Amino acid sequence: MFEKSVDAQINAGVHGIIIGGSLGEASTLMTNEKEELIKSGIKISAGRAPVVLNIAEASTKDALKQVALAKQWSTQGLMLLPPMRYKADERETVEYFKAIADSTDLPIMIYNNPVDYKIEVTLDMFEELAKCKNITAVKESTREVSNVTRMKNRFGDRYKILCGVDTIAMEELLLGADGWVAGLVNAFPMETVAIYELVRQSRIEEATIIYRWFMPLLELDIHPKLVQYIKLAQAQTALGTEYVRAPRLILSGEERKKILGTIDDGIASRPSLPEHLGIRSKTSAYA
Amino acid sequence: MFEKSVDAQINAGVHGIIIGGSLGEASTLMTNEKEELIKSGIKISAGRAPVVLNIAEASTKDALKQVALAKQWSTQGLMLLPPMRYKADERETVEYFKAIADSTDLPIMIYNNPVDYKIEVTLDMFEELAKCKNITAVKESTREVSNVTRMKNRFGDRYKILCGVDTIAMEELLLGADGWVAGLVNAFPMETVAIYELVRQSRIEEATIIYRWFMPLLELDIHPKLVQYIKLAQAQTALGTEYVRAPRLILSGEERKKILGTIDDGIASRPSLPEHLGIRSKTSAYA
Amino acid sequence: MFEKSVDAQINAGVHGIIIGGSLGEASTLMTNEKEELIKSGIKISAGRAPVVLNIAEASTKDALKQVALAKQWSTQGLMLLPPMRYKADERETVEYFKAIADSTDLPIMIYNNPVDYKIEVTLDMFEELAKCKNITAVKESTREVSNVTRMKNRFGDRYKILCGVDTIAMEELLLGADGWVAGLVNAFPMETVAIYELVRQSRIEEATIIYRWFMPLLELDIHPKLVQYIKLAQAQTALGTEYVRAPRLILSGEERKKILGTIDDGIASRPSLPEHLGIRSKTSAYA
Amino acid sequence: MFEKSVDAQINAGVHGIIIGGSLGEASTLMTNEKEELIKSGIKISAGRAPVVLNIAEASTKDALKQVALAKQWSTQGLMLLPPMRYKADERETVEYFKAIADSTDLPIMIYNNPVDYKIEVTLDMFEELAKCKNITAVKESTREVSNVTRMKNRFGDRYKILCGVDTIAMEELLLGADGWVAGLVNAFPMETVAIYELVRQSRIEEATIIYRWFMPLLELDIHPKLVQYIKLAQAQTALGTEYVRAPRLILSGEERKKILGTIDDGIASRPSLPEHLGIRSKTSAYA
Repeated sequence: MFEKSVDAQINAGVHGIIIGGSLGEASTLMTNEKEELIKSGIKISAGRAPVVLNIAEASTKDALKQVALAKQWSTQGLMLLPPMRYKADERETVEYFKAIADSTDLPIMIYNNPVDYKIEVTLDMFEELAKCKNITAVKESTREVSNVTRMKNRFGDRYKILCGVDTIAMEELLLGADGWVAGLVNAFPMETVAIYELVRQSRIEEATIIYRWFMPLLELDIHPKLVQYIKLAQAQTALGTEYVRAPRLILSGEERKKILGTIDDGIASRPSLPEHLGIRSKTSAYA
Repeated sequence: MFEKSVDAQINAGVHGIIIGGSLGEASTLMTNEKEELIKSGIKISAGRAPVVLNIAEASTKDALKQVALAKQWSTQGLMLLPPMRYKADERETVEYFKAIADSTDLPIMIYNNPVDYKIEVTLDMFEELAKCKNITAVKESTREVSNVTRMKNRFGDRYKILCGVDTIAMEELLLGADGWVAGLVNAFPMETVAIYELVRQSRIEEATIIYRWFMPLLELDIHPKLVQYIKLAQAQTALGTEYVRAPRLILSGEERKKILGTIDDGIASRPSLPEHLGIRSKTSAYA
Repeated sequence: MFEKSVDAQINAGVHGIIIGGSLGEASTLMTNEKEELIKSGIKISAGRAPVVLNIAEASTKDALKQVALAKQWSTQGLMLLPPMRYKADERETVEYFKAIADSTDLPIMIYNNPVDYKIEVTLDMFEELAKCKNITAVKESTREVSNVTRMKNRFGDRYKILCGVDTIAMEELLLGADGWVAGLVNAFPMETVAIYELVRQSRIEEATIIYRWFMPLLELDIHPKLVQYIKLAQAQTALGTEYVRAPRLILSGEERKKILGTIDDGIASRPSLPEHLGIRSKTSAYA
Repeated sequence: MFEKSVDAQINAGVHGIIIGGSLGEASTLMTNEKEELIKSGIKISAGRAPVVLNIAEASTKDALKQVALAKQWSTQGLMLLPPMRYKADERETVEYFKAIADSTDLPIMIYNNPVDYKIEVTLDMFEELAKCKNITAVKESTREVSNVTRMKNRFGDRYKILCGVDTIAMEELLLGADGWVAGLVNAFPMETVAIYELVRQSRIEEATIIYRWFMPLLELDIHPKLVQYIKLAQAQTALGTEYVRAPRLILSGEERKKILGTIDDGIASRPSLPEHLGIRSKTSAYA
């Protein structure tokens, strides 16, 4: 099923695959399981899209160890969160990022999500991090769309900006974000890529129709149970299963019924897509 | 100065003038001062743009009284907040809005700002309010850009949506908002209107250049001291003065210096505008 | 009914009466109604307890006007909030307080409630306000019980501290608060005074029994609908009616049933009180 | 130094030692380091106070594994957090707690800290957990002092309540909390125990003097850098060192100077303590 899912996404035109999402079930994965997922992903991709590992560790020591392993496994890039389980201050967070960046030649995308992880990577901190050549991108999840403009004003094209919040992705792409680290792409890869490609071609009306249709589904991405919700969506589009690991439990009762209703309504009213695959942009947001 | 300011805005192409902004100094105005401002505004506008009064009262009785006065003064529309000074629940808020809407034939724009006023007007409440024919628009200030999409999905074109937060206006206009109740328009009317008109023509790149330039100034709109900040900007663009009424105090020291720096930087780097006045759209967002 | 209510409270042993609570219905009162309430309160009290007016205005000018009227009406003290409807900064808030304090010889209690009114009166601001001799007390509603200790450490007995949050009153009295500006006292004056007096005598076990019984009722005080809830409680203890002014609506349906259940449970299990009236302390917290 | 610290606390009269505090550096500890700390703690205690391990894991599987190890190491009790890194809902959190409680015969104290960990263990959830005989206590860190009264009203003595927030400990002990999981006890064990014992004897005035003196130090416990702050305090009272593991960094510059000032002021004005050791209560809050 992992193979089918990765393959469907790459076929739809995504430019990269990220393994080990931190709001996902990564914290329940053993090291050998991560290795297996990375190696398997690389094999399935077969060079069509880079495979990236998310680094979300509580100590600098553990993070360095994980990064070294990622390199050994031939991972092609890193997504990097501030330290987990401690609200590090600016100096500590920057030191943490630098220690990791200096230890590897892999390209790094900083994951900036103060809503879920409390630590905000501020513009001043990005200024400091600009010295690290391999920190090349940011997953922008501050939920403030104007942060795209602030980043562009301050850094021009120094950092690739990838929107990390499904429900505001089209807005951020329109204002200059370079990419979209999507959630519902797992269940609806074609629609996700269609919006991205249409916006790049300034075909706003067509993109808006798909985005409006998509919104009730995209909202599943900003809930604590996004894993269960997106997996249920994947089950309905034949790209995954509902299975989760404890402490997560499979949805039940009224909640499952309600979410299933949203998903099935979406599937029943799927918009027709333009021939977007033929227009796949040649450059990857992450290369 | 009031005359000069209103005239400059209408000449720049705004489609309406709102008097008595509630985050502004309206709460320091006496009734006779409101009357004077409304009547003066109508005279200056001379039919070029409707003049609207903001209703922000603590009791239903006071609000009804104010609305009746507005009508007597020939006000052409109302902006309407939930009750002040009490966190009314859904039933109470809807009853309040209905009581006011039923008392007048003036068109009403609901001002939805749960961040500053605690009460959110939810989609379900707008469903209920759809029965009131003269509630025709919403000033959308929830700070959630996706709310534009949610409103469009639920109500189609039943309500005109006007963005009420300067820093996310271009994003919301791109996604289908009908207008922009702007703040920095008081100091920079041409640039504000230019962005609005360019977006309506899908000239995104040109709009983005102006919007990025504008952002540091637009951020002055989302601060508790927006009145002092915008007035200082107006003073610098010769469209107003710094004078405020107590408890507000005129800016001083480091704070004034910093804000002045932002404003003067903006003025020094003003972008050239397209010949947008010739392209003023014929329909008013508020008629 | 106003007479009965005030009389019941003074008979129970309260040391002061405050008119015009700002989370109450004061914002729906006309000036002449305030005058009537103050004058009537003074008459009923007949010197047994001072009558205090709450000042909650949006402009310095309006506040000064209201304070002058209060003096004319023979009000014996003022409770004073930061400016309404504007998040004044420290300098502005202190200037506001000073302007009012300097205009009158009435004793003033600052009402410090950053949760409901956004502006916190910090220790540094109280330092500045210490110059105003007639600012003698603070209604402590920050919800942080440790603020009592912080105030005592910084100011000793310079300010009387009166707890403004029913649900943490016993804790604050135990740690040195001088009084309690109570909410449920309107419906349960005897029990409120009993806790206050028992704590002053270090009879903690007896006070705890009453306080635990009282807690589900005291929680009615920290809800946006405290007016409706407390009025319903007063109706049940024959010290008031349910009537409220719009935009507030009388409770209905499930909500009314639930609150009524809490109130009736409380009444049915009222604890026996010690002979506390005989032990009424001779000094008023507010004189 | 670990030996000296544990010994000092037990000599001062604490009733238990908790290893692996989750806001502490536990997330940087390897399993074998935890084992060493537990075994060493048990040896130093030599039966004078139980040694408890904090369980803060991201998956049920990892938590069960850790609990089994704790038992092997002869740990005498567990402190248990909701799952880390996932905002489990009520059903999931209760299932998680039950799975762990059912797997062991060790007594368990639930750590209820929604401020730092987002998940609140509600009264209804405690109702459900009452079925687990070995869940015997709660570390109450909701920051709401009235929660002590709510818990007592609902559950009587079913759960021991231990205050988990230094700055509100005296208030909660006065209202019936059974114990205090203290932070600054690491640097000031005698003063911490003195307050606890004096409150139990209703010697409120004496306790208040110590508590007021203690407050500026206790506030070090409610800051993200509590580890660095408390370690600096321990260094100054010769009960520890400043050393921390990355991503934490040792304090420097103005921040270190300021905190050191607070600590040294506290040491310079240490209050004399009553002969409290002679009055050590015979029963442990945790047995």
